[in-house]
Amino acid sequence: MTYAAPALIACDWGTTNFRMFLFGTDGEIIARHAANIGLKNLGVLSFEQALASVMKDDFDRPDLPILLSGMVGSRQGWAEAPYVACPAGLKEIVAGLVTAQSDKLKVKIVPGLSSQNADTGIHNVMRGEETQIYGCAGPKGEGVFLLPGTHSKWAKLEAGVITGFSSYMTGEMFSLLKSHSILGDLMADDIDDVDAFKLGVDRAMNDKSFLSLIFSVRTEGLFGKIAPQSLSSYMSGLLIGSEVRVEILRHGVRPVGIIGDGTLSKLYKRALEHTGFSEVTIHDGDTASAKGLWAIAQQAELVL
Amino acid sequence: MTYAAPALIACDWGTTNFRMFLFGTDGEIIARHAANIGLKNLGVLSFEQALASVMKDDFDRPDLPILLSGMVGSRQGWAEAPYVACPAGLKEIVAGLVTAQSDKLKVKIVPGLSSQNADTGIHNVMRGEETQIYGCAGPKGEGVFLLPGTHSKWAKLEAGVITGFSSYMTGEMFSLLKSHSILGDLMADDIDDVDAFKLGVDRAMNDKSFLSLIFSVRTEGLFGKIAPQSLSSYMSGLLIGSEVRVEILRHGVRPVGIIGDGTLSKLYKRALEHTGFSEVTIHDGDTASAKGLWAIAQQAELVL
Repeated sequence: MTYAAPALIACDWGTTNFRMFLFGTDGEIIARHAANIGLKNLGVLSFEQALASVMKDDFDRPDLPILLSGMVGSRQGWAEAPYVACPAGLKEIVAGLVTAQSDKLKVKIVPGLSSQNADTGIHNVMRGEETQIYGCAGPKGEGVFLLPGTHSKWAKLEAGVITGFSSYMTGEMFSLLKSHSILGDLMADDIDDVDAFKLGVDRAMNDKSFLSLIFSVRTEGLFGKIAPQSLSSYMSGLLIGSEVRVEILRHGVRPVGIIGDGTLSKLYKRALEHTGFSEVTIHDGDTASAKGLWAIAQQAELVL
Repeated sequence: MTYAAPALIACDWGTTNFRMFLFGTDGEIIARHAANIGLKNLGVLSFEQALASVMKDDFDRPDLPILLSGMVGSRQGWAEAPYVACPAGLKEIVAGLVTAQSDKLKVKIVPGLSSQNADTGIHNVMRGEETQIYGCAGPKGEGVFLLPGTHSKWAKLEAGVITGFSSYMTGEMFSLLKSHSILGDLMADDIDDVDAFKLGVDRAMNDKSFLSLIFSVRTEGLFGKIAPQSLSSYMSGLLIGSEVRVEILRHGVRPVGIIGDGTLSKLYKRALEHTGFSEVTIHDGDTASAKGLWAIAQQAELVL
């Protein structure tokens, strides 16, 4: 197999994860690399040192333009790329690109997006997800995209513009409740219990109060209604269902693209299909990041 | 001052707290004692040993009937006093009294209550709070009672019968989020900021999704809308408001008796008054326990 000449190094650089891609002039990926240099693992290394340390072999090309997205653009990152306010498309994102300080490298950082709720005035923010959305939808895409995770996001894209999005603390809440609350006490030998999960989703769909509903994890265990090994699935159903309920109010039941990897995406797909969504597609998160970085690089004319 | 002859020793014995009262034949309290022998602090002591260790001075009366309420009647307690199902009045509670195993002491334990939601089938449970409610309302009382705490409770009493109640994980959730989640990261030098608290309550009243709303603690901090020292008050308002919103749906705006102590009761009162409740009374939690234990002892004819 022959490749086009290398044209761009691009990285999805988050708090935990770091993934690097080498693109050819035709936009195909020549090489990929993952490393343990997420923001919280940098130790004494500067961002420039950390990046230089992984630019070996195929990636030993300090002459190429480098494009980064994710938490590397936050206040705790290499250089702060201030949030661009929604509605925002590729053009607005590119206008917000920031140059990172470096002696040897030509580094640009993709800004995150912010979205203000018109009713409440509350802000939401994302960093990295905007890149994945464009990687799936393309510059002129449409639709609703769900990005599960620690703080999951639901974004709406209209004619290539991200018009708004919401964040939910679902993933972090699950960990908190399981590891640090009384609800985790009765859990043991977790299995993936589909029925318990769906019961949780059903109850969340009719729910009026999260703080009351979630306490049922304890009482259902205490009264022997749900077995210890299924309580984790039940709680997962309650949490994910709680998110789906509100998004149905917001967008109705319509096609949804899930961007992410593995188990969590499948759980969301299960919850969506159980509540009547018929067109749910899972997109690989890494591929979405890579394609999005390329789309932004093209729009920014970092590549021709 | 002269006292009637001692007639009863009664204790509110919970996971953390232990409070003991000596009653005269006229129902007046002759002596009170608090000790650090909550269930989680028993160490190697048996329940009988722990109780005997605090029965000194005025309380050195192993001949008297002893009545206990709270978590001491749970599966992890001295003897399990199974939950009595609502609707339940003093008569049903007394029918559920359990005798604790003891060589020297005459010990009865008050059962907790369970309440099953007619729509969802979900159970709620309480232990100790039923005693406090009767201590405030008397045997034929009426009204809505709120018991703030780790797992707060809202109970409805009709003609002396507790017809049902709900639990909320509000207190535990506040600690979890503050100590273990990303939301605590931006908080510093907490003050009691009344305006930030009320903003939280207002937003909770219009809320559709707790998991989304609570994330605003982070974004409001991030965007500098709420100062670091006020974020804790804002989060407290969101959590308490979230509970009040649902209880307004359930019971409407009506007189509420808050049973509890100190700061937390005052925060709930502030939230209730801010959302239109005009008759909110705070009852001291210890006094409520003592009076309730006496009412149960009378109904059970442990005292004449």
